[in-house]
Amino acid sequence: MRIITGGVTAAKGFEAAGAEAGIKYKDRKDMAMIYSKAPCVTAGTFTSNVVKAAPVLWDQKVVEKSPFAQAVIVNAGIANAGTGKEGYSYCERTAAAAARELKIPEDSVLVASTGVIGMQLPIDRIEAGIKKLARAKADTKEAGDLAAEAIMTTDTHAKQAAVQIEVGGATVTIGGMCKGSGMIHPNMCTMLGFLTTDAVISKELLAKALREDVTDTFNMVSVDGDTSTNDTLLILANGMAENPEILEGTREYAVFQEALHYVNETLAKMMAGDGEGATALFEVKVIGAAAKQEARTLARSVVSSSLCKSAVYGHDANWGRFLCALGYSGVNFDPENMELYFESAAGKLLVYKDGAGAAYSEEKASEILSQPQVTVIADMKAGTHSATAWGCDLTYDYVKINADYRS
Amino acid sequence: MRIITGGVTAAKGFEAAGAEAGIKYKDRKDMAMIYSKAPCVTAGTFTSNVVKAAPVLWDQKVVEKSPFAQAVIVNAGIANAGTGKEGYSYCERTAAAAARELKIPEDSVLVASTGVIGMQLPIDRIEAGIKKLARAKADTKEAGDLAAEAIMTTDTHAKQAAVQIEVGGATVTIGGMCKGSGMIHPNMCTMLGFLTTDAVISKELLAKALREDVTDTFNMVSVDGDTSTNDTLLILANGMAENPEILEGTREYAVFQEALHYVNETLAKMMAGDGEGATALFEVKVIGAAAKQEARTLARSVVSSSLCKSAVYGHDANWGRFLCALGYSGVNFDPENMELYFESAAGKLLVYKDGAGAAYSEEKASEILSQPQVTVIADMKAGTHSATAWGCDLTYDYVKINADYRS
Repeated sequence: MRIITGGVTAAKGFEAAGAEAGIKYKDRKDMAMIYSKAPCVTAGTFTSNVVKAAPVLWDQKVVEKSPFAQAVIVNAGIANAGTGKEGYSYCERTAAAAARELKIPEDSVLVASTGVIGMQLPIDRIEAGIKKLARAKADTKEAGDLAAEAIMTTDTHAKQAAVQIEVGGATVTIGGMCKGSGMIHPNMCTMLGFLTTDAVISKELLAKALREDVTDTFNMVSVDGDTSTNDTLLILANGMAENPEILEGTREYAVFQEALHYVNETLAKMMAGDGEGATALFEVKVIGAAAKQEARTLARSVVSSSLCKSAVYGHDANWGRFLCALGYSGVNFDPENMELYFESAAGKLLVYKDGAGAAYSEEKASEILSQPQVTVIADMKAGTHSATAWGCDLTYDYVKINADYRS
Repeated sequence: MRIITGGVTAAKGFEAAGAEAGIKYKDRKDMAMIYSKAPCVTAGTFTSNVVKAAPVLWDQKVVEKSPFAQAVIVNAGIANAGTGKEGYSYCERTAAAAARELKIPEDSVLVASTGVIGMQLPIDRIEAGIKKLARAKADTKEAGDLAAEAIMTTDTHAKQAAVQIEVGGATVTIGGMCKGSGMIHPNMCTMLGFLTTDAVISKELLAKALREDVTDTFNMVSVDGDTSTNDTLLILANGMAENPEILEGTREYAVFQEALHYVNETLAKMMAGDGEGATALFEVKVIGAAAKQEARTLARSVVSSSLCKSAVYGHDANWGRFLCALGYSGVNFDPENMELYFESAAGKLLVYKDGAGAAYSEEKASEILSQPQVTVIADMKAGTHSATAWGCDLTYDYVKINADYRS
């Protein structure tokens, strides 16, 4: 596995673009396009929210019913959620406009939106934006960068990752981009993620690989406990690497899974660390759990806790809050027989064991918690299962951003 | 039902006191005592957290095994949680000290602690504090006030309520006090609540009345989603009103339930409105739900949402966030057929219906959201069940308080 630079244009045959369409923001790119020179098998995972944005409903239909997809149109600023039949009609018109410009079928166009809920899309500007994007699209790294910037909302930087593997003598590439950064919680976040690969792989196996990996990557991220109406993660595979088809149960599938996992985990961590107002990436590792699902539940409970997040922001080794958040997760365990550690680039420290605080230096603990990436490790001493969750600290700026998000 | 002033000393035969014991704070009262002249039947509900503080374990034993309780000793500043066997031994010593001073059995002394997790109690100061409290205790309203102040942590004001009813010609009083104000979430909050009544009622029926009412009062409060290790709600009934015993299924029991509900709901709302950093009481009413439990789940999901809480703080009628939080609650409903309203002393406004935003004045909405008590109403149009949850807005000060709570 070779880690390379780039994002959605890293894989063969994929083009991208970012453009200013004036949807809601002023003087910034707010629309992106991904286009594949060849039709792609595609898979996706979507928000578990009962209230699903119009683009989610549209994409679910495309992923389920269309044999191929070939383009994705994304806008930032308006989520096209809570917009009723009118909102859904704008997904149809977006797909129709892209189909005309790109000369591909309407049902091969995926759409995604992020931003404020409840406003209708200015469809004329979307249609004008699509023309711009179609003219500008390119297969360069720079084009991928522009697309990654265009999909941001309150994100402070673009998020991309890419990797290459060898499959039967052919070089297969997986690349991706995503955006956060509020309304982010397990079971698909207010996150949009787009992955592209030139691998030859069936639609069914692609869907399986994505589904399995999301459980331990994007679904282990929480910024604020709010599961958005728009969460979408899409992967498009155009087969242009011309590798022998990747089949289930083979070594090649394992290598593909590992590569996909790298891209997903990298993007997921970038998203967590760039949560609204965040000053630190907050990682929670649960080890020694009795079952895999219990490990996930425990890790997510701590990473979602406002009090733990505030403690990380305050560089305060208040381990009682971490113990408390494990305790209310719903998982049963013996608090008298487990251990808690704080770890970062500044070192690792045992803070709790045998039912009470360990002897440790508060100064050292605070130094550890002052780093840009902070890990809390809970050793449950009940089995062999582990899980990791990612989030960020809770800061004044989170409140500031969200108390006047619409203005 | 007559609403009266006072708290734990309102009912006949109950005394209270508050005193400076120097547990952790300086220059403020930090220990309280409740004492009944006659032995009491008692009931309690406790945290659902797997990690239970030592006083919770002690009280569960007293409530379950002792025929009577006669005193409660409370300290603020240190939670006596995450303190292992040593911590539990301090509960035993606290009870022993109170038993000596008050000349009552050790197993009739309840204890409660609130504050920082992980520190051991300075038991010598606790014992000295008990002597002070025993000397100072009185059955006056002022003594109840002192006790209510002494149990506060980051609370900004004391919380008390009391009410009187007539039962078979006798006047029965129920009074209570509680404290919040962080680590507060459904299923018992970091809340300590103490209720006293002079009613003649069996232990079993008292427990039933308390259990049933908590579901719709204290367990519908959320400040920050963190369920504490110390949550405790206790009720003591000393029978000194000499009313004919209140029996299940009678009109008298219904009146008693109504009175208990008033005290619990009043205290719960006070606690929510005084959440850490709060500038407003945030009330969520779900009506027209298909089932009672669904109504509760929907209401709690909205009241717990960081984004909804931030919107209330920002006086921002961002109804999409409220719709979104209903959507990820786990309850299924039809977002195309429900309505959302904002309501406060400044008026009531329909903001969402038929799957999209209603035509409303943003100015009016912001005026409504600027009041000290703000209600969001979700009419699910799916049945006849309703539930109300209480919380508060999310503010800079919540983060400030919790980023350096220990210092």
